[in-house]
Amino acid sequence: MKKFYIAKSRRLRGTPYTNRIENQGVTAYTAYNHMLLPASFGNLEKEYFHLREHVQVWDVAAERQVQIEGKDSGKLVQLMTCRNLSKSKVGRCYYAPIVDEQGKMINDPIILKLSENKWWISLADSDVGLYAKGLASGLNLKVEVSEPDINILAVQGPKSFKLMEKVLDKKITELKFFGFDYFNFKGNKFFIARSGWSKQGGYEIYVENREAGLKLYDELFSMGKEFNVKAGCPNLIERIESGLMSCGNDFDSGDNPYECGFDQYIDIESDINYLGKKALAKISKEGIKKKLMGVKIDLDKIEIMEEKPLQNGKSLVGHLRSAVYSPHFKQVIGIAMINKEYWDKKTTFELEINGKKSKGSICDLPFKV
Amino acid sequence: MKKFYIAKSRRLRGTPYTNRIENQGVTAYTAYNHMLLPASFGNLEKEYFHLREHVQVWDVAAERQVQIEGKDSGKLVQLMTCRNLSKSKVGRCYYAPIVDEQGKMINDPIILKLSENKWWISLADSDVGLYAKGLASGLNLKVEVSEPDINILAVQGPKSFKLMEKVLDKKITELKFFGFDYFNFKGNKFFIARSGWSKQGGYEIYVENREAGLKLYDELFSMGKEFNVKAGCPNLIERIESGLMSCGNDFDSGDNPYECGFDQYIDIESDINYLGKKALAKISKEGIKKKLMGVKIDLDKIEIMEEKPLQNGKSLVGHLRSAVYSPHFKQVIGIAMINKEYWDKKTTFELEINGKKSKGSICDLPFKV
Repeated sequence: MKKFYIAKSRRLRGTPYTNRIENQGVTAYTAYNHMLLPASFGNLEKEYFHLREHVQVWDVAAERQVQIEGKDSGKLVQLMTCRNLSKSKVGRCYYAPIVDEQGKMINDPIILKLSENKWWISLADSDVGLYAKGLASGLNLKVEVSEPDINILAVQGPKSFKLMEKVLDKKITELKFFGFDYFNFKGNKFFIARSGWSKQGGYEIYVENREAGLKLYDELFSMGKEFNVKAGCPNLIERIESGLMSCGNDFDSGDNPYECGFDQYIDIESDINYLGKKALAKISKEGIKKKLMGVKIDLDKIEIMEEKPLQNGKSLVGHLRSAVYSPHFKQVIGIAMINKEYWDKKTTFELEINGKKSKGSICDLPFKV
Repeated sequence: MKKFYIAKSRRLRGTPYTNRIENQGVTAYTAYNHMLLPASFGNLEKEYFHLREHVQVWDVAAERQVQIEGKDSGKLVQLMTCRNLSKSKVGRCYYAPIVDEQGKMINDPIILKLSENKWWISLADSDVGLYAKGLASGLNLKVEVSEPDINILAVQGPKSFKLMEKVLDKKITELKFFGFDYFNFKGNKFFIARSGWSKQGGYEIYVENREAGLKLYDELFSMGKEFNVKAGCPNLIERIESGLMSCGNDFDSGDNPYECGFDQYIDIESDINYLGKKALAKISKEGIKKKLMGVKIDLDKIEIMEEKPLQNGKSLVGHLRSAVYSPHFKQVIGIAMINKEYWDKKTTFELEINGKKSKGSICDLPFKV
């Protein structure tokens, strides 16, 4: 597959760690929330095996925070998500689909409750801050919407717990999944959550002080030698195998959260107030006609730039949206929006790429690795 | 300067023309409104000279349209921009800064009035559709906000007029600057505006039918041989020399439209209603303390990923935001946000990149080429 360069500019700005990862061998970027997000260090499969066995430090500064502060902040945050936050606790992270008035997906962030009047929405790739500003102005809410200069470092992989314990202290290992707290490192406080965009375990460090963050970055590498630490990035193979959905890839503004399998994060019963509640209640009653599922395809490589139709004879089975070669399954696996009549797992389909047809089959998510 | 690949995925989706431009030699992309926007065909300077002399066809499908339709559409469009649209006419394009309630820049699109109840906002790079959705929901406006599947082809350069006349008909040459109309090509209607992101003249074709658009694309190349037509893209050298501002590069959500030199598109006098009007009236009264200006720097190459401080001794002159080597000026030229005390054109400054200092000076925009 032909490769193309990324044209650098301030509009796709670098992060505090860009210089470091370029010295550490990053080879490809994607753009995410108007920033550079590393996508590969030269060998996706090697990085995948390393991530599953050791520990990696990721520059995920592109996971921007929309900060919502003020008297009406809780009201505004709830207005945007179909997840019931009425019992949310300070110090906890909530995976929460953001929807529009039609109940269509806008983003699937982690929402962090810092206090009753201060929230961070830790974004996937879209300008949710503009949605919040529009709503705040339209409803005349008492809030301040901003994008603070927070540049997340993720520490991911099974050895992340040992590395973080060594660099910080024992207390970090007591943090529960999706909990967060402040931790000290050489006189600086760091906001750290037990979270991350892999299923291999780890933390996300919300760096608020660039200089202190760079010192911590370097310490993670010098202290991490015994754990075989490497610079890494969200890994396409790992995330698809783990069934971690990607906003803009697997779903977009044409899909609703039921179709994405986010049922457990949708509340249409209680008396909370959010945009799209009426639309989602209607969808829930009528039932959905397509949903995201896994697929396996008899190919040894693939590159997706747009959704690809999956056919069964003349019938449309669905659309392939993300895909990658999996060394575990020894074939291409992917995430596809499948039409209802084909939810039966035994269905097979054909995928045509550049005139060549391949066979594939449907399965549940996450993949059974 | 080290080069990096762009990781392709559906989240930075391709356009109907991607296959064609990849066969025509595109080498680098940028991401723009969640799509691929070509950034180079291998030699920026050669492309610059070609654009100034001949004609190029550009895949600028990434200039997405926010379509606002319905009874309150005019009200919503006006709410978002500081430009007075009360006398706007159907069939005309309006360059119009989009601002937030604090009077800060969100985008600098072209707004097209298709009818009293239908508008297109032809975007620079940010999700203005989410701002519009938030406002529409918050104010309960009778509008529909959508992103239609429109994929713009730009035909730019001094010979674009002759080429378009040959492919379409004489009538196209009568279109006034920033006017638009429908034109026929082989049984399909095309919405065409006399506009484009260069100062070399030309058109933008708002392709609404993908298949018909590809036929027109091919026709432009086969009919364009006598005009030395080439595939191209917005050219960094040409756009900086011409003083065309780039949203996200030269200005961002920390700047107001006065600081960007958009004074003629700001109305604080008449009785129109838009967000940020009060803030802009205050700024107008108090005066601004920084503004965008041109700079010339004694360097023969540069790459900008973040704004760079410009110093005069220990004093901060401003920040460099875009820059490129100009073959015309035989040095690097750029666009910088300059602090008020340095608006005097004779000021010189120093720029430090990787420990190396260079001298530079400030000038007016656009550059006098």
